[in-house]
Amino acid sequence: MYSAISPLEFRYLNFPEAKELQKYLSEEGFIYHLAFVESKLVDTYSHYDYCKPEIADEVQKSTHKITAKEVYEEEKRIHHQLRAVVNCMGQHVSSQAKPWIHLGATSHDIVCTTDAYRFKKCSQNVLLPLLIELQTILISLAEREKNTVQIGRTHGQHAVPITFGFTIAEYISRLGNRIVKLQESTNDLRGQFSGAVGAYNAQSLLVKNPIEFEKTFLQKLDLSPATHSTQIVEPEFMLDYLHACISTLGVLANLSDDMRHLQRTEIAEVMEKVSQKQVGSSTMPHKRNPIHFEHVKSLWKSFMPRVTTAYMDQISEHQRDLTNSASARFYGEIVAALYLATRRLKRVMNSLIVDKDSLKRNLQMAKDKIIAEPLYIILAKDGHPDAHEAVRRCFIENDAIENLNLNEEQREIIANPQKYIGFSVEKTQNVCNYWREKLDI
Amino acid sequence: MYSAISPLEFRYLNFPEAKELQKYLSEEGFIYHLAFVESKLVDTYSHYDYCKPEIADEVQKSTHKITAKEVYEEEKRIHHQLRAVVNCMGQHVSSQAKPWIHLGATSHDIVCTTDAYRFKKCSQNVLLPLLIELQTILISLAEREKNTVQIGRTHGQHAVPITFGFTIAEYISRLGNRIVKLQESTNDLRGQFSGAVGAYNAQSLLVKNPIEFEKTFLQKLDLSPATHSTQIVEPEFMLDYLHACISTLGVLANLSDDMRHLQRTEIAEVMEKVSQKQVGSSTMPHKRNPIHFEHVKSLWKSFMPRVTTAYMDQISEHQRDLTNSASARFYGEIVAALYLATRRLKRVMNSLIVDKDSLKRNLQMAKDKIIAEPLYIILAKDGHPDAHEAVRRCFIENDAIENLNLNEEQREIIANPQKYIGFSVEKTQNVCNYWREKLDI
Amino acid sequence: MYSAISPLEFRYLNFPEAKELQKYLSEEGFIYHLAFVESKLVDTYSHYDYCKPEIADEVQKSTHKITAKEVYEEEKRIHHQLRAVVNCMGQHVSSQAKPWIHLGATSHDIVCTTDAYRFKKCSQNVLLPLLIELQTILISLAEREKNTVQIGRTHGQHAVPITFGFTIAEYISRLGNRIVKLQESTNDLRGQFSGAVGAYNAQSLLVKNPIEFEKTFLQKLDLSPATHSTQIVEPEFMLDYLHACISTLGVLANLSDDMRHLQRTEIAEVMEKVSQKQVGSSTMPHKRNPIHFEHVKSLWKSFMPRVTTAYMDQISEHQRDLTNSASARFYGEIVAALYLATRRLKRVMNSLIVDKDSLKRNLQMAKDKIIAEPLYIILAKDGHPDAHEAVRRCFIENDAIENLNLNEEQREIIANPQKYIGFSVEKTQNVCNYWREKLDI
Amino acid sequence: MYSAISPLEFRYLNFPEAKELQKYLSEEGFIYHLAFVESKLVDTYSHYDYCKPEIADEVQKSTHKITAKEVYEEEKRIHHQLRAVVNCMGQHVSSQAKPWIHLGATSHDIVCTTDAYRFKKCSQNVLLPLLIELQTILISLAEREKNTVQIGRTHGQHAVPITFGFTIAEYISRLGNRIVKLQESTNDLRGQFSGAVGAYNAQSLLVKNPIEFEKTFLQKLDLSPATHSTQIVEPEFMLDYLHACISTLGVLANLSDDMRHLQRTEIAEVMEKVSQKQVGSSTMPHKRNPIHFEHVKSLWKSFMPRVTTAYMDQISEHQRDLTNSASARFYGEIVAALYLATRRLKRVMNSLIVDKDSLKRNLQMAKDKIIAEPLYIILAKDGHPDAHEAVRRCFIENDAIENLNLNEEQREIIANPQKYIGFSVEKTQNVCNYWREKLDI
Repeated sequence: MYSAISPLEFRYLNFPEAKELQKYLSEEGFIYHLAFVESKLVDTYSHYDYCKPEIADEVQKSTHKITAKEVYEEEKRIHHQLRAVVNCMGQHVSSQAKPWIHLGATSHDIVCTTDAYRFKKCSQNVLLPLLIELQTILISLAEREKNTVQIGRTHGQHAVPITFGFTIAEYISRLGNRIVKLQESTNDLRGQFSGAVGAYNAQSLLVKNPIEFEKTFLQKLDLSPATHSTQIVEPEFMLDYLHACISTLGVLANLSDDMRHLQRTEIAEVMEKVSQKQVGSSTMPHKRNPIHFEHVKSLWKSFMPRVTTAYMDQISEHQRDLTNSASARFYGEIVAALYLATRRLKRVMNSLIVDKDSLKRNLQMAKDKIIAEPLYIILAKDGHPDAHEAVRRCFIENDAIENLNLNEEQREIIANPQKYIGFSVEKTQNVCNYWREKLDI
Repeated sequence: MYSAISPLEFRYLNFPEAKELQKYLSEEGFIYHLAFVESKLVDTYSHYDYCKPEIADEVQKSTHKITAKEVYEEEKRIHHQLRAVVNCMGQHVSSQAKPWIHLGATSHDIVCTTDAYRFKKCSQNVLLPLLIELQTILISLAEREKNTVQIGRTHGQHAVPITFGFTIAEYISRLGNRIVKLQESTNDLRGQFSGAVGAYNAQSLLVKNPIEFEKTFLQKLDLSPATHSTQIVEPEFMLDYLHACISTLGVLANLSDDMRHLQRTEIAEVMEKVSQKQVGSSTMPHKRNPIHFEHVKSLWKSFMPRVTTAYMDQISEHQRDLTNSASARFYGEIVAALYLATRRLKRVMNSLIVDKDSLKRNLQMAKDKIIAEPLYIILAKDGHPDAHEAVRRCFIENDAIENLNLNEEQREIIANPQKYIGFSVEKTQNVCNYWREKLDI
Repeated sequence: MYSAISPLEFRYLNFPEAKELQKYLSEEGFIYHLAFVESKLVDTYSHYDYCKPEIADEVQKSTHKITAKEVYEEEKRIHHQLRAVVNCMGQHVSSQAKPWIHLGATSHDIVCTTDAYRFKKCSQNVLLPLLIELQTILISLAEREKNTVQIGRTHGQHAVPITFGFTIAEYISRLGNRIVKLQESTNDLRGQFSGAVGAYNAQSLLVKNPIEFEKTFLQKLDLSPATHSTQIVEPEFMLDYLHACISTLGVLANLSDDMRHLQRTEIAEVMEKVSQKQVGSSTMPHKRNPIHFEHVKSLWKSFMPRVTTAYMDQISEHQRDLTNSASARFYGEIVAALYLATRRLKRVMNSLIVDKDSLKRNLQMAKDKIIAEPLYIILAKDGHPDAHEAVRRCFIENDAIENLNLNEEQREIIANPQKYIGFSVEKTQNVCNYWREKLDI
Repeated sequence: MYSAISPLEFRYLNFPEAKELQKYLSEEGFIYHLAFVESKLVDTYSHYDYCKPEIADEVQKSTHKITAKEVYEEEKRIHHQLRAVVNCMGQHVSSQAKPWIHLGATSHDIVCTTDAYRFKKCSQNVLLPLLIELQTILISLAEREKNTVQIGRTHGQHAVPITFGFTIAEYISRLGNRIVKLQESTNDLRGQFSGAVGAYNAQSLLVKNPIEFEKTFLQKLDLSPATHSTQIVEPEFMLDYLHACISTLGVLANLSDDMRHLQRTEIAEVMEKVSQKQVGSSTMPHKRNPIHFEHVKSLWKSFMPRVTTAYMDQISEHQRDLTNSASARFYGEIVAALYLATRRLKRVMNSLIVDKDSLKRNLQMAKDKIIAEPLYIILAKDGHPDAHEAVRRCFIENDAIENLNLNEEQREIIANPQKYIGFSVEKTQNVCNYWREKLDI
């Protein structure tokens, strides 16, 4: 394992639970699913009585018998991966069954359909449940902290108060929205069985209605065709899916970045929980570094640019040029990165330390300044001819606020800036309620 | 104009009809729409009887009075663009109306809402109609050429025959799918009126139910809020929209690339129509270059990478850090690029020359080879134990096909490869019908 | 101007001094330089006595007579920009001179050479001097603050002390290094005069030794040829130049990001100087936002991804495919962005407010913790068997440091963490000295 | 192996010779080199007589004893990779030697220096020799085919003739230029030994002159320091190196793209050599696909965008923020991709089939048209008032060339377009000679 060059292998997916991902995204997983899709094709021939059900059964059983190793050995001989899968399957079935495997299919009828299928199942069974677990943790955190006052920040400057729950609600809303996009694009992945150039040339020699046959075949895989395909499925379905993955990773990176900054020594409003044994720095033993938040940001920097490959893969000459062959094999890495970032954040957000003393201390720092906004609003509402300028001068020129003409009630509001949190609490609860219901959490 | 550095200005948008785009995307257009959105805010105060309808009317009228020039002069003085717009509006209304302008709003309540509004209207009124015009042209072309046999190509190699209409149908399907995505993401652009950090702090001093007030305000602009906002609208709605734009541009680039290659001297199946006066090359007067197709591909190379900026703009610290301020101002360029590419393709695809002699000549070249596939299928269907290998050897080793055991009917099929077009015609018509109906063309 | 869509035009280059940039990068500048390069070609024919010097003179004078407007009108007629330039020049010279203009050249002999020339001169005359002005300001700042103690930060956490001069020295070193790269890649921009496909086909009919002729022509423009060219100059020279620009912009973005964070309310070690009139926020009149630093970061987000276009433009089919035609026209925008970022930073770094009270206060916060490192080093040096773990436990488990066995001198070192600045002062001065000398500042 | 997700592992580096790469880029290689660099640090302590040479020897020997597996187990316990390496080394040395390991170093003194070292050695020992092998093959091919006439192509259209050697010479020139850039940036990779924040804080407690000490340490590794460092080496040295890698990959992708297009059925001027056993297509047994050229283009699409990560990694807050920790671990993949593309191209270019019949046939097609350029040049040289337009009309309007007034000699030139190859032969030989000498081939 440590002879690998990709850090995904030896470092980041180096834990037992990663198997749930490898089941779909590893080469073993890919090869198994290729065979699985081939078997569904034979099943479709049987469905229309072109071959006997026994043939389909036999082929279906062969899918569990072939190994990645034997496929690679066969490929070495014939230099064609999919044909190697077909040959290996052929060795595990009778001579009656053999000719039915891959009959009428071009390689990418199987490859594209397999990718659609395994990415779909990976999303449904692994990625989306994990994201919803993270969402659940964020909702609990927001609800718990919905009343915890925090100074709001824009430009890195103190603005006006919110609550820490409201801060988290931003990410619940954005993540919820991404989960929906990921669900939609997952459900919209498509397969095909349309032959070498998409016009069902071979199929037209084999079955009566190849367009209907394609639909039936794909239904068996919980997929549907696009309105057209060439040798490959239209690339936009996969692109939308990868866009959903990467933009979800972007939300996680922003959350991590925020938490990372809130852990700055001078701010210290939150802290990653650290195990007793953890070494913070090899030379500065006292450091409490936000390493998990940094890690998620770093994964984003590494994987976000890779979506560009999928945009480039939109361009394939004529009925296909195969310059997407290697590049598309790397798409699974993007899904793996999102999985890793989600898993990491789930753990660290679940045990996030919220330091209420720091929250109060920081709010206190801002006290004198945050009253500027309510002051301006009050003056403007009362018809002050140039409220904004009056208040701005107040601060820039250090005029006393006392000189302003305010009534008792207004003075009280500006005396207690921690009460100036607007609808933070209600909004936080609204967001939590909305996404609990929408995602059925 | 020629003192500009951006080629968009002096070169690519240098034609009268570009005004329909500039109405939304130019700085004049931006400033007008800022004022328009400000006026709708006052209208909302009037809606809830906080101010009189006359006030709202007065403000509404002021939107047509301010100019970009005066706003820029005011900004020079106070160094804040939105406040400059507000000040300029203030100079065109009575002193009773003035305090109502921008009341309770943070700059980005207006800026984000304006961007959502103008991009939405630009899509609905300019971009989508133009794309549908292109789609209509493609559908007509596909229907006209649905029976025109063309050799299908994969890896740049002759594969099996299709029709030229089928070739075009690919792009109808992919473009149709993108138009739908663009419609969806256009409709999903969002606005806000939630104050400096998103918690309605200022609004809570001014109106009873700021969450309802926000909804009403946005309804007047054909918009709705997200479940949460900070100082800015969640960036994912705009990102999805830009993703839709860029992935649409990718489809146009692929179409252009295909046409460009089909115009190669040796292939010559299509040709851009050239005006008599056009200079092909400054030194080679005889050249017929696919300059429009090259242009679209080149625009794609220039603008596709810019979507990365929108992915980076997902990250904004805390309730906002303003490092998206300059970058978001460039988003309109992406829309402009898609507009330009669509317009260019519309023109050139509408007058595309399809050279039937070349189509026949190229198909003829392939004749001997394209029978390999039907041969393999026929043999396999008849139960040949290793049909693929048999046919492969046939070609690699130049064995005579005559040696194979074929019946009369099968011999006829492989004697007329131009008939081996599968379901090209039906599929083409299906695709055209589907998208005509779906897009109501 | 406000009808433009590109923010570069109406917003960011909207100041008189921008003319020094537009001279090279605007369309007017481009067209002038095309004519200028054409005139140098005739000059070369004269150099070798193919034509009379008077002809060259006449052509040289015509370069100041043509306008962008007339070129665009001619282009409208003939649909070829370079031929339009040639035609317009032709109208300003005698019929004897006319045939010598553009003789033997393919368009891109002129276009590529013009781009190399104008980017080179723009770098030498505008960009590099401006960067060196910024560098000079940074050096002065670093020297001024070389003794001002600041807490060093890693992971956003207090680490061990440095000085503010040392903080700035990082950027002097990185910027210096980029200036050198920019100089090198500027000097390495190349031209050509090798004809339609690079093999001097036309030239071989016109001059005896076209390879020598090309060299002489380019020498007149302070340029040289690559070892090979096709219809276009090898794209890597321009790519290296744009890489130098964008990686320089990256250094400026990092400096801005650091300053931006040091201006956070809780840190407040530096502050952008604000004019009295400036509006910080449209609703929060008290805000002091790091808008210039944010602006530079935002420019980087907008322009960094555009370098991808130059990597894509490496690929051009055969002797050229022209899909770099539009995209290369946008390269000037990258140079403009670097110019704008440098200019902005120059201004703001020149008047940067360094708050010594905040620097002290923050250092004081860290006092107890920063002694961990010297403690560990001292223990380790003295042969403590597990110094790192001992000190780490000390802090995690809140053991008293007093329990450790330290001598008097060591106790003094850890009592005054502000003295633990290592070689900050010397290193800062070394960096300043090195780059002063290297860049002749 | 097949449980991996990265195709690099199970698919593309799945051959014995890949070990030469894994030696530097795998996790085993990384860990070995970390230990190796740590041992050179102790060696430097010994160099200055801080410790005995025996200590340095002992540590040096321990580098071969530790395994990746034990380091990962230790890391699991303490959650810090570099400290785990140090601890594992400590278990293989005496208690006198143990405290000297890592003394005064911050983790990234070792990590950054190790990366500089191993990437440098990987370039020098593996990458550059391989690229020079490819260059040698290209030079032989160009020299062999320098007289083989080929039609030159621009816009995918026939332009004027060159030779196939000249076509290849483009890539020799561009690749040569990239090899030089790769050599330069390889040699410019830097190390550091400057402590937690770059100011030699710890080092100042340990050695007299830490700046000199750093130099000596790095000299032992064939490296030098930058003028400044923080916790990390300035990122631009690595960025320049990765830029060199990716822009080299771009040249290889362009070469592959050109060959791929020249293999199109209608063009067929070159062909990848295919083994007898190779399966071209799973359904079309006759296909001869340019799979290796497609593969290189596809690798480029997959890896080119990843350079964006290195541009993003330029930004690290203050003395470091660690968001480059994961991302930098992936840099080796870029080097691996360049290695794979070079290796693939070396093989396929070495056995490239050049089809002279096709070259002639295609040239013949162009015959009538390519005379346009020499015609125009001859007319212009003879003072024709509007030669370009005259010739253009000739072709557009199908006027007979015969009507033009040409002398005997001129008529002969245009009668034999295959002679109109300009300086193709001389230029090809010049390019070959230049790069043979420059790269000492």
